[in-house]
This record gives sequence, structure tokens and C-alpha cells, in this order.
Amino acid sequence: MRRIRNQILRALKSGPKTFWELINEQDAYIAGFYHTLQSLMDEGTVGYENHRFFLKEDPGVREKIETLCSTCGLGVEIKGFFQEAYEKFLYVTEDRPLPLEDYDQGFIRPIDTIRRMAFIYQRGDLEGAEIFILGDDDLLSVAMGLTGMAQRITVVEIDPRLTYFIEHFCKKWGIGNITVKQYNVLEELPKEALGKYDVFVTDPVETHRGFKLFVGRCLSALKGPESSGYIGLTHREASLKKWAEFQRFFLDSGLVVTDILRNMTTYPEEENKFEHFYETYEIMGKMDLPIPEVDWYKSSFLRVEVIEPIKVQVPQVKDFQELYFDEESWATPGQRKGRS
Amino acid sequence: MRRIRNQILRALKSGPKTFWELINEQDAYIAGFYHTLQSLMDEGTVGYENHRFFLKEDPGVREKIETLCSTCGLGVEIKGFFQEAYEKFLYVTEDRPLPLEDYDQGFIRPIDTIRRMAFIYQRGDLEGAEIFILGDDDLLSVAMGLTGMAQRITVVEIDPRLTYFIEHFCKKWGIGNITVKQYNVLEELPKEALGKYDVFVTDPVETHRGFKLFVGRCLSALKGPESSGYIGLTHREASLKKWAEFQRFFLDSGLVVTDILRNMTTYPEEENKFEHFYETYEIMGKMDLPIPEVDWYKSSFLRVEVIEPIKVQVPQVKDFQELYFDEESWATPGQRKGRS
Repeated sequence: MRRIRNQILRALKSGPKTFWELINEQDAYIAGFYHTLQSLMDEGTVGYENHRFFLKEDPGVREKIETLCSTCGLGVEIKGFFQEAYEKFLYVTEDRPLPLEDYDQGFIRPIDTIRRMAFIYQRGDLEGAEIFILGDDDLLSVAMGLTGMAQRITVVEIDPRLTYFIEHFCKKWGIGNITVKQYNVLEELPKEALGKYDVFVTDPVETHRGFKLFVGRCLSALKGPESSGYIGLTHREASLKKWAEFQRFFLDSGLVVTDILRNMTTYPEEENKFEHFYETYEIMGKMDLPIPEVDWYKSSFLRVEVIEPIKVQVPQVKDFQELYFDEESWATPGQRKGRS
Repeated sequence: MRRIRNQILRALKSGPKTFWELINEQDAYIAGFYHTLQSLMDEGTVGYENHRFFLKEDPGVREKIETLCSTCGLGVEIKGFFQEAYEKFLYVTEDRPLPLEDYDQGFIRPIDTIRRMAFIYQRGDLEGAEIFILGDDDLLSVAMGLTGMAQRITVVEIDPRLTYFIEHFCKKWGIGNITVKQYNVLEELPKEALGKYDVFVTDPVETHRGFKLFVGRCLSALKGPESSGYIGLTHREASLKKWAEFQRFFLDSGLVVTDILRNMTTYPEEENKFEHFYETYEIMGKMDLPIPEVDWYKSSFLRVEVIEPIKVQVPQVKDFQELYFDEESWATPGQRKGRS
């Protein structure tokens, strides 16, 4: 259990801990935690004396960084290390490409990219992990690159402006563990990506088939049991019936949902320069509505984990029209004028 | 959509709002939100002028109380109205009954009971709702009673000390909308409870069958689509395989998981006076462990919502031994000495 091991080791880095202190620092159930501890002792990495576990050798991980919200104990709070990463991230992404309608783009607030990253870190899925990102207009790979924590990151992305931006960032900042590839989700994944990653992150389109296509591609990139995935999913363009359909898809693929962080991320209207997108949104034809004066498009962040051999299911999707539109896509540009 | 209507109406109570402001105050997807708004306008409760929706008559709900965490925007923050409820709750529950091993009891911190309640409120599932609580050693019904918000609350609970405590509380404080009934989950629900509630809340045991028995009973108490449920579930005594099993059970019963709040609630060791429980915990036989010096037993709070006609599935469970123990119940009292 790579992830649980890392959570235990980084907690012990700050000093010896009792069984009960340590169980609070990791995500496994008691039996799984016990077996992981036992194997760390058997291999000689961890010792146990006076009811305290301690490191017998340096495991090569950083001391744990606290990211849990100090007010409510539930969400993510950015400070210290991740606050610095946030400031660097703002600086290096100042001239980021703006969203294009062609790819159903739209990026989340920079602070939300950092909060997602901190949550992934909290779960033990950043440090030392091999990470696969499908679609990266939020530039999560850049944020992760700034931390230097991941073992390696692969980004597959359709928009050459973004692949160029990320490559340029890596070159300028001397970051060697990020690979970027231009890729259209309608195509098969390149062979070298199959079965190679601990973690995926994607913000899928939310049509019935589009969602499963994005997630299905990501699943084929994972190693197997104990790998995990992070997915943005809205309540705005996905009804609860659709949520249920997607949850059944996870279970049938061998995954379980471990976290649902409601409305964790906000798509800022101004920075995205969405105004002209609205001309063609389905919802604008229903009522006499103004252009939004507040940020309203939000997405929840879901974490899933693989619990049995993955059954990859990838639906047939023939073109972008079918990928981007169904009866619930009321805030996706292009539908009303019948883009195809 | 009772819940969505209420969320809209309580938001408008503080003044007119645009479409985009209002969509942030409720949980439905755009199409569902649009139809709910439309029906509120058709019936004459809500008007629309100068791009703002406003109340045409007093809908008899309170103005919205903010409960979202001001630090992270994700969890629950207790202040104002709910802070007062918390203080009253501490006062009236000072002499609460302590947990008994016989019923696998253990209560969460009082602040967590209030946080659960505030989250239920946030979702629109408290004010005006008919609420069914199966097992109430956390005394959530008492907290809810103090708010005066629910339409009615029914508690079914096996422990006569608790039914007495809640009844006594109601009498002393003149609360007339809470009904309490002594009830053993192994029995069928009383007929008058079937199909009558908008919301259920339960902290099920976490054995394979026990969980489904608790939730199955609760499902038979719900009205149907758009009803919802709140469930405590741990990572401590439930592996992710079990989580997946339960998620499939939800879907097969006609429900979807809408929220997973990881480790939202803590079981305080000292207040529960758990010390002597540990003698018989499975985990204590595995290692030389001290009695916990920190609170470590936590549970996540899940919200589920009914999306299609409920299929109630209640497994056969023959006795308390089968109810309370399976291969993952490593911190449940009684197993090692073979209680039956």
C-alpha cells in the first residue's frame, strides 16, 4: 500500500507516534493499517518501543504538511508550502492561454487548482506518485511541477497552445519529470501510457458518453488496485440521475467513490472571458437572462479508488457534437446554433 | 422539489436575486433549477423584474442562515443561530446516558451533532421536513428540537434510557413535534412509519448485513424520489471494498451518493468512557497497545438521495452477534470474549 505507507512515514518523520496518533494520519481501515505497519516493521523501516512507532532509517519522504482546514476540519486550507506554490503558480501562469469554445474549455480559479493539489497531497497521492492528467486547461501539472513532489507526470491534452505552454514552462524552470503529449480523447491512448500510473486527474465533459470516455481512457492508464483518480463533476450540467449513472460506471469498472467535495472549485467568469460563450448557451434561450455578474459555474471534486482488477469500458463516441452535447448540457457553448 | 423550492425561497427572503446569484443558493442542476423557478412563478409565489427574482408573498420560511465554512468554503462553520443551538444542546444533554456495550453505542462530539444538523439544514433537509432517525445516541433529535425547524421528527431507538431521555427533554421544553418509540432494528418497522418521511438519519453498524439492515429499514420509512438520507460510515471498521458494496446497495435501492464528508465526526474517548470497552476489541489482541490517549475513532458523513422508486432490500439478520460482528469489526466491544 504505497499511499498508506507514505502517509505513515511522513507522519513519523516529525517524531515517534502511538498507534492511535498514527491511525489519524492515514486513510486505511484498522486491519489494513495494522498490516501496513507490520510490514514496515518487518522490513526494518519502522520500530516500536514504549508504545511508540519510530523511523529506523530515513524513508526519503518529507515531513507531513498540514492541509486540513483549521476552521471546519473538512476542507483544504492553503498556507506555508502550498501558499508559496500558489504564489509561484500565479506568477508562471499569468500569460496562460484563454479558453476556446472548440474544446469546451474553462479553467478553475488558480487557488482551486492549488486546493485540488493539496487535497491530492493530503490523500498521499502526490509525493512519489506517477500521475496521469487527461486535459489540463487548469494547469494542474504546472502547479504539481512547482512542488517537485511527484515522481513523474504525464499530460495528454488536445490544445496545442496548452501543450506548448506546459512544455515551455518545464524548459524555463528546468523541470524534467513532466511529459506532455497532444492527444484527442476520441483516439486510443498511446501504448506507452497503458497501465503505468498511480493516479489520474481529469475534468471530463459531462455528457453520458463523454464522461465515460474520459474516465475510461484514464482507467486504462492506471496500474490497478490501490491506484486512484480525481474527477471534476458539476451539479450544474449533471443531474443526480446522471451522477448515479456515473457511480454505477465506477463500481462496474472496479472503483469506489471515497470523497465528494461539493462545489470545491469555481470557474471565474472574468478571467475566463466567458461573455461571448453565453450567446449560444441552451439556458439563455429559456429566459430573459443577463450575463452573469457573479461566478456561478462550480464543480465538485470526486476521488475514486481502484479496489479490484480494473475493467476498462470505453464507449463509442463518433464526433465532438456527440462528445459535448446531451439533454443536460445547458451551459456549453455551441449547441443552440447547432455546432457540429 | 420541496428541498430546492425551500432553498430558493429562503435565499429570496433576504432580497431580490439574479438567476446567477440564485443558482448558487440551491442544489439542483440548471434544468431542474429552471423548472422549479418557473413553477414558483406560475403559482405566483415568485416574480421576475429587471433580471431579478423576488418574493410576491411571504413563503413562511426563515431567511437563509450561512453555514458554509468561511475558511475553505467546503465544510460547515457553526456561528450565530447554530452556535446558540450548540450552547443550548450542551446544557440540555449534560446528563445524557453513557454508551452501553450491549448496543454498540458511542456518541460523537456535541459540536459534531450540531455540524451534522447544520449540514442537513444547508441541503434544505431540516426546515419544514419530516425526519426519521433510527438510533439516536448522538441525540440529534434533541438538537433539531431546539431549532424548531423540522415539521416533525420520529426517533426509533432500542435503548430505553435514550427514549426516556428524549421524551423527558420534549416534556420539559414543551416540544410537541418529536415522537419517540422503543424499537429493535431486527423487527419490522411499525406500519405507521412506512413511506412517511422526507429525510432519514442513521449511524448504522458497519457489518455487511447490519449496514443494509439499518439503511433498508430507513428506506422503507421514506416517501420516495427526492427524499434523502444521512449516514455515518467509518474508514476505521469498513474497508473500501465494503464502501463499494454499500454504494452498490444504494444504487440498487434507487439512491445516489451526493456528498461524502471524510472524517466529519469524532467519537471522544473521555466523554464516552470507552476505556473498559478496549479489553475486548479485536485490535487489542494483535499488538501491545496502550489505551488511546487521543480521539481516533472518526466517521464520515454521507448524504444519499432517492432518484427513482425505492426498492427496499432488507437482509435477514438473526441476532446481535451477526448484527455487530464481521471480519472488519476490530474496534467493537465483545468479539474477543465471544459475546453472543
